[in-house]
Amino acid sequence: MKAKPISLTAVNLKDKLWKNRFRLVKDEVIPYQWAALNDRIPGVPPSHAIENFRIAAGESEGEFFGRIFQDSDVAKWLEAVSYVLATEPNSKLEQIADDVIDLIAKAQQEDGYLNTYFTAAEPDKRWANLRDWHELYCAGHMMEAAVAYFEATGKRKLLEVMCRFADYIADIFGPEPEKMQGYPGHPEIELALVRLYHATGQERYLQLSKYFVDQRGQQPHWYELEAAKREDSRQYLRDLGPAYSQAHLPIRQQETAEGHAVRALYLFSGVTDVAVETDDHALLEVCRKLWENVTQHRMYITGAVGSDHYGERFSFDYDLPNDRAYTETCASIALVFWAHRMLHTELDAKYADIMERALYNGVLSGISLDGKSFFYVNPLEVWPEACAVRDDLRHVKTVRQGWFSCACCPPNVARLVASIGQYIYSQASDAAYVHLYVTSEGELELDGAKVKLIQETDYPWQEIVDLTVQPDKVSEFTLALRIPGWCQGALVSVNGESIDLAPLTQKGYAYIRRRWQPGDRIQLTLPMPIQRIRATPQVRENAGRVALQRGPIVYCLEEVDNGPNLSDIILPWEAKLTCVWKPELLSGVMTVQGKALRVDGAEWENCLYHAASAPLKTEEIDLTAIPYSTWCNREPGEMLVWIREG
Amino acid sequence: MKAKPISLTAVNLKDKLWKNRFRLVKDEVIPYQWAALNDRIPGVPPSHAIENFRIAAGESEGEFFGRIFQDSDVAKWLEAVSYVLATEPNSKLEQIADDVIDLIAKAQQEDGYLNTYFTAAEPDKRWANLRDWHELYCAGHMMEAAVAYFEATGKRKLLEVMCRFADYIADIFGPEPEKMQGYPGHPEIELALVRLYHATGQERYLQLSKYFVDQRGQQPHWYELEAAKREDSRQYLRDLGPAYSQAHLPIRQQETAEGHAVRALYLFSGVTDVAVETDDHALLEVCRKLWENVTQHRMYITGAVGSDHYGERFSFDYDLPNDRAYTETCASIALVFWAHRMLHTELDAKYADIMERALYNGVLSGISLDGKSFFYVNPLEVWPEACAVRDDLRHVKTVRQGWFSCACCPPNVARLVASIGQYIYSQASDAAYVHLYVTSEGELELDGAKVKLIQETDYPWQEIVDLTVQPDKVSEFTLALRIPGWCQGALVSVNGESIDLAPLTQKGYAYIRRRWQPGDRIQLTLPMPIQRIRATPQVRENAGRVALQRGPIVYCLEEVDNGPNLSDIILPWEAKLTCVWKPELLSGVMTVQGKALRVDGAEWENCLYHAASAPLKTEEIDLTAIPYSTWCNREPGEMLVWIREG
Repeated sequence: MKAKPISLTAVNLKDKLWKNRFRLVKDEVIPYQWAALNDRIPGVPPSHAIENFRIAAGESEGEFFGRIFQDSDVAKWLEAVSYVLATEPNSKLEQIADDVIDLIAKAQQEDGYLNTYFTAAEPDKRWANLRDWHELYCAGHMMEAAVAYFEATGKRKLLEVMCRFADYIADIFGPEPEKMQGYPGHPEIELALVRLYHATGQERYLQLSKYFVDQRGQQPHWYELEAAKREDSRQYLRDLGPAYSQAHLPIRQQETAEGHAVRALYLFSGVTDVAVETDDHALLEVCRKLWENVTQHRMYITGAVGSDHYGERFSFDYDLPNDRAYTETCASIALVFWAHRMLHTELDAKYADIMERALYNGVLSGISLDGKSFFYVNPLEVWPEACAVRDDLRHVKTVRQGWFSCACCPPNVARLVASIGQYIYSQASDAAYVHLYVTSEGELELDGAKVKLIQETDYPWQEIVDLTVQPDKVSEFTLALRIPGWCQGALVSVNGESIDLAPLTQKGYAYIRRRWQPGDRIQLTLPMPIQRIRATPQVRENAGRVALQRGPIVYCLEEVDNGPNLSDIILPWEAKLTCVWKPELLSGVMTVQGKALRVDGAEWENCLYHAASAPLKTEEIDLTAIPYSTWCNREPGEMLVWIREG
Repeated sequence: MKAKPISLTAVNLKDKLWKNRFRLVKDEVIPYQWAALNDRIPGVPPSHAIENFRIAAGESEGEFFGRIFQDSDVAKWLEAVSYVLATEPNSKLEQIADDVIDLIAKAQQEDGYLNTYFTAAEPDKRWANLRDWHELYCAGHMMEAAVAYFEATGKRKLLEVMCRFADYIADIFGPEPEKMQGYPGHPEIELALVRLYHATGQERYLQLSKYFVDQRGQQPHWYELEAAKREDSRQYLRDLGPAYSQAHLPIRQQETAEGHAVRALYLFSGVTDVAVETDDHALLEVCRKLWENVTQHRMYITGAVGSDHYGERFSFDYDLPNDRAYTETCASIALVFWAHRMLHTELDAKYADIMERALYNGVLSGISLDGKSFFYVNPLEVWPEACAVRDDLRHVKTVRQGWFSCACCPPNVARLVASIGQYIYSQASDAAYVHLYVTSEGELELDGAKVKLIQETDYPWQEIVDLTVQPDKVSEFTLALRIPGWCQGALVSVNGESIDLAPLTQKGYAYIRRRWQPGDRIQLTLPMPIQRIRATPQVRENAGRVALQRGPIVYCLEEVDNGPNLSDIILPWEAKLTCVWKPELLSGVMTVQGKALRVDGAEWENCLYHAASAPLKTEEIDLTAIPYSTWCNREPGEMLVWIREG
């Protein structure tokens, strides 16, 4: 048995940081979103998403309103609700969800089809434009919701609805000449079908996913065929061509991550699932190559991806501008999804490292500490005046927003945060894996034993993780602990006795095998010096700069702590940096403090350029850095991740 | 008598650098442009500009084709031709020009109106949209051509045509209630009318210019009135509002340079003219304030302006990105026009310094060394791969282009280069001014004497300027020599005898008064060490960087000399730089050479980020910098002005 994630219901989350965010999702995001989906928020453009389902169900007379993918907002909400229910019973919330599911079921058509836009607004356009419309995308999200709701509650109604829809889709699409050889413009259904396969055991869903994966980008090109059929000569989104949706080549020929970042990473997640489930080593190699391209050439230090606003996309290797970054929250979330899948293809901590990097930085930055506002775009450098004036920075918001007309990120944050529990542990036949250090209890089922793992830690702020192993009986098995890539000199003791990690460690996991007694205690120490991170010189934007990182946390400077013009601050190599715990600040964060330098501005009065007559004159200043994910939770202002190195 | 520029016909240009560019304009640009205006260049979109005049003149049957300001291409061509004829007789070229002028005269309407678009295509739309259409702009350019042709050849035909048109315009526009209270969306006619006033002595042209200057931005706002009249609710260009064309406020209330850079600087040139000619000190103060805003807050080191592609405009103070710069060649040319005017409001070398900076850098970069291709946009940093992929760099061309559909820059370069002679000298009642050091002879008329000044120099490459003073008789007057702002420790000798400059120098001019004998010789030495220029820390883009400058020449690194990834090069403060004359390179340039450092790339194989364990490891490399204006005359590649300081 290969390692598998454990289910969310088997995890009891107690972590200060994550439980806090979980509560925000439960108490703030989900109710707010429910009100939004029902058009009950004054001053915010109506969502109409629930009303659309009523119309499609014949319960209401109105007209469809919203984006062509409006249904997916309901699906993502329902998925987040499922994760909340899996973690904490909540009969009121469950009743609301049941009612929504009843409504969804009513909106399903006789033949199994389910999409409010193409039911209520353009019934004759079904499947006419897979390239630009989002039917299969919406289907995928609803399948994910169905699986999550079934796993959380045991209730099958939505699962059955989505199986009927999946069966109908399998009747329409496939390699057989009488079917359509299409595939979605926005991938998502690929990974959703594999979840449906896992939940139902029905291999036809895996086969349909495999079909979508393999058909993508084949010649004759479906998007050309369907465009010809509808006599549509409009260009692909702007002029980006089929690479925009990863349809420029069959997936097995793709070597770089191209196009819309969320689409790409949802696709690669689905491809990884298919490769694993069909034991397709060649396809897995494709995933590995794409993984290397993304993480070694196209990823910000925050785990953010998609550096180009135009097409919300990957651009090219080492093009990682900090101020113009697109770096959609959803893309970091998608990277977490993919990393989690890659991790289970081979237990190499390099995947968990990226998962952790994205989670603690690029994902958490997407939501405010009060859970009420969101970043869609997550730049690594912000000069508010420039964002207010320059058109090429128009996509960068300098404060989090309440909601978006394209509301993909807030519900995506919600479903990820609500399901954080499932990323912590995995189980194999005789091994228990700990990937993330999060105060929690996990119940694992190994071949010979049920094992409860009890984690207690102040990670990511403190270096110590205490683990208690509670097998239901004395059992021999392996406990595999991730040693993060950022960590040098990790220490482990079992019941107070140090053990030498070096011989036990493979690909970033320390494998501790023994006969475990109930109550065995492990202490893991992960030294967290403040690190100055450099980027490869190929990243031109970061030349002469360092970022600060401690543990998995990437830091930034904010104007509120350091005054304006952060580009002017120089961090000398010699500067001693210390970490200072601030329990009252930003819900409790470890800050990084030290002395740095600033250019002496006195000589620059009314002078734009002058000839240097000496090395740069500087003055000493106090520097305070805070975790990047917590920026813009006080007064708005400048922000900077990559600091000039002195 | 205040100082005035001397006329082009009084200058005999002999300079290696400028005469060479002059010849390119004469032998390459003007013939090419003539062919283009006549649609004789295969593979290039037709201009149709001459044909438009034929149609408007009733000589041809076709339809108007081209931009609404297509006429101005003919005007600018004719103006450049005039400057060539003022410098060197050329009967063949003069005949072509005469024929064009005959055609233009025939295209003039009964009432004096002259514009081929509104004659041939939309005769009922005359003056209906001053905001967006370019009738007054085209009129201005043709007035400039008329004055230049008259001054070069003494022929009055085009001058009379344009006086008739100006008289007609004065009948239409003005403060009187029965007239239109409009003004041009694209300024140009303001400065042109003052030229017409100078050429004809007719004060009504000055008054019309003054009217346009003062009416701009007044309430009720003309652009709103005319939009209402034509029931046009379209937004101002994108969403930039009236600031796009400097009509957001009356000029006397403007304190910052806003909107489209070329429009702004043409306007400010005209405002300066009006202030001088009407002795309006308050208006001159407005010009001075605007000058400070542009040159102390919004100008690149190359004398380029207009940092934002969106609206080709000024953005805000210190927003000077190097890679995304818009920095239109025409805007640097307009800055030269304005600087030349400001210089004659008060003889302060700070104006001539900017004029020189723009001329030798931001203007000359616009044209290739073979005169056959042009930059419209002049960035200070180019990464060709990024320009090929990123939409926010789409305006940046990485090689000069043969022609543009909006062909404003090439003819603008042509008219400036062809008239470079008039920027060198000025004459006052008893003073002769030398602003630019250019091998040439200037014939000046002072109150008591005619004086020929003979300059010989290898400036800007060499430090020595030899001047011979040839008054027609022994005369007492002042010779005022500009001591450039970049220069420390200038030396002067008269007839071999050193003189102490300090007591003679005011606002950057050394005033040498004596009884001059024919043949008196002055030697000026302008020490040209290689300077490392820093920008104020407010320019975030240049934090930690220096630019190299020697004399007036700004340098850059090119990939062809320094390999790829120029951002990776570090110039330590200690690095000794030397200048090396390369007679064969780029038509003969002084290069800057020295040792610099590069980050050791060895440790970065397949690694995007890593924790620094030591100060940055570097290796020594040879560095070669070339004059910025000559970049991209060899193989294409990266280019960088602001070099990382070590």
